[in-house]
Amino acid sequence: MPRFELNILGCGSATPTLRHQPACQVLNVRDNLMMIDCGEGAQLMLRKMRLKFSRLNHIFISHLHGDHCFGLPGLLSTLALHEKCGSVTIHVFEDGARWIDATLKQFCHELPYEIKFNVIQKKSGIIYEDDALTVKTFPLRHRVPAVGFIFAEKPKLRHIIPGAIDRYGIPHWQINAIKAGADYVTASGETVENRLLTTDAEPAVSYAYCSDTMPSQRVVNAVKVVNWLYHEATYDDEMRHKARKRFHSTAGEAATVAKEAGVGRLILGHFSKRYLTEDVLLEQARAIFPATMLADEGLVIDLNKID
Amino acid sequence: MPRFELNILGCGSATPTLRHQPACQVLNVRDNLMMIDCGEGAQLMLRKMRLKFSRLNHIFISHLHGDHCFGLPGLLSTLALHEKCGSVTIHVFEDGARWIDATLKQFCHELPYEIKFNVIQKKSGIIYEDDALTVKTFPLRHRVPAVGFIFAEKPKLRHIIPGAIDRYGIPHWQINAIKAGADYVTASGETVENRLLTTDAEPAVSYAYCSDTMPSQRVVNAVKVVNWLYHEATYDDEMRHKARKRFHSTAGEAATVAKEAGVGRLILGHFSKRYLTEDVLLEQARAIFPATMLADEGLVIDLNKID
Repeated sequence: MPRFELNILGCGSATPTLRHQPACQVLNVRDNLMMIDCGEGAQLMLRKMRLKFSRLNHIFISHLHGDHCFGLPGLLSTLALHEKCGSVTIHVFEDGARWIDATLKQFCHELPYEIKFNVIQKKSGIIYEDDALTVKTFPLRHRVPAVGFIFAEKPKLRHIIPGAIDRYGIPHWQINAIKAGADYVTASGETVENRLLTTDAEPAVSYAYCSDTMPSQRVVNAVKVVNWLYHEATYDDEMRHKARKRFHSTAGEAATVAKEAGVGRLILGHFSKRYLTEDVLLEQARAIFPATMLADEGLVIDLNKID
Repeated sequence: MPRFELNILGCGSATPTLRHQPACQVLNVRDNLMMIDCGEGAQLMLRKMRLKFSRLNHIFISHLHGDHCFGLPGLLSTLALHEKCGSVTIHVFEDGARWIDATLKQFCHELPYEIKFNVIQKKSGIIYEDDALTVKTFPLRHRVPAVGFIFAEKPKLRHIIPGAIDRYGIPHWQINAIKAGADYVTASGETVENRLLTTDAEPAVSYAYCSDTMPSQRVVNAVKVVNWLYHEATYDDEMRHKARKRFHSTAGEAATVAKEAGVGRLILGHFSKRYLTEDVLLEQARAIFPATMLADEGLVIDLNKID
């Protein structure tokens, strides 16, 4: 099955601790790597998790707080030392693009690869698309402009029934069309329906990333029925007052978003440094939405496993 | 004895590895912390080494390569979250001050402490002085403007001989002058020589930091007879050609600088990522200058121990 895998490089909040790194994830989409947020130390976590620098082509930055982007200068410099080719596209708010550009001008002359900026805005819309997936933004509710991202696989190709190619004499160049759902017309003009040639494709999987945000109806609407939802749960429910003041969510609030949106599974992250373990967050969330798990540095989640 | 202690937070070179962090040291001078260079991850190493953020008041940046300053944005932000009071002075080249300023404007509004810049230049001179020590710069020889730093303790106070205060009826307010070397004049006009009142102070200790640089006669002259010399040794002697090309030093070259300058001890650092252990560097350096040691993350050196 085409690889669609989430790597957690950091799931702490503003202050890095000895337990948690600042925000960073890497989505492995068919061996192309897409980074989501890039807190300080991201390049070291890439190395620890044995993710290949050369396969990193896109970086999505949710908002301009340091714990979500201070890893960029180091990462972009190190990519140059690794003789990265081609390009890296950074999807980021305009002020962020300006800061990265100024930083590169100061520190990185003559990069061996191209850095492209895709300036994003605080609204809903498709910001990236390729053969395998689309990436959409949607507005979060935070102290500074912030967006969540939905990474949605496009419908996958159907599977050819063993023996069908030989039986109907299907030429090689028509196979992809048939995998995509087309019927086959034989040389003599006879139509063979696709259902006789193929079996169902695996379902297309979707992943939504929401960090940092207050719980919000707009978020609920945006992430409706995604298979996987990462939602920040900076605090436990007792700390609701603090969460409100800082435009963050509690574990119970994250679970309520997941429940109301009817998502498949919920991953909690962006943990406050106050917790020595996040068991209390897991417990509070599971009371509302049982299919909840905790993010953790080094965790790799096969997003294809949606049963 | 007044504390004068060197903490190694990072002694790797441009690319951080799983063994070495980028450049960062903290000098503990009588419980005031002075940071020397600030590579990415410096704040995490501070935490690992249990060095108190609140005691950090000065940061010295040797040159504007990312592996020597990309930890600044995160560190300065985290200091704000720790409700750091007072001020932090950053001693840095002008372009660096400009970059830090722009970064803070983007990411850190309303800091609870003041950031002061002391703009340094590529020349020799005293850039800082207090009751305990002076800090001098001297030019290094690198691809971009770079300076080394010498942290030199001022002469320490002499020790009062037990019983002398009572014997001569010395009033409390004169003790500091006597510790500094003054004779004592009694009420009846009799002069008591200082040598009858005090014993020798501990020697004032000096530490020189040289990273990154080619071996250079100017460096030799600048660091003459310091007690401790940290000198980069990015490569082993077989890699001399590469060292020259990149304006770095080999282990043997660092040792030759130490020998010619007549320093007390040599600490090697800024190791290339190519080494799985730095034993070869140590061996090559010791063949020329036996009093050599390797830097390592987490290492704490009591600079007072100069015997």
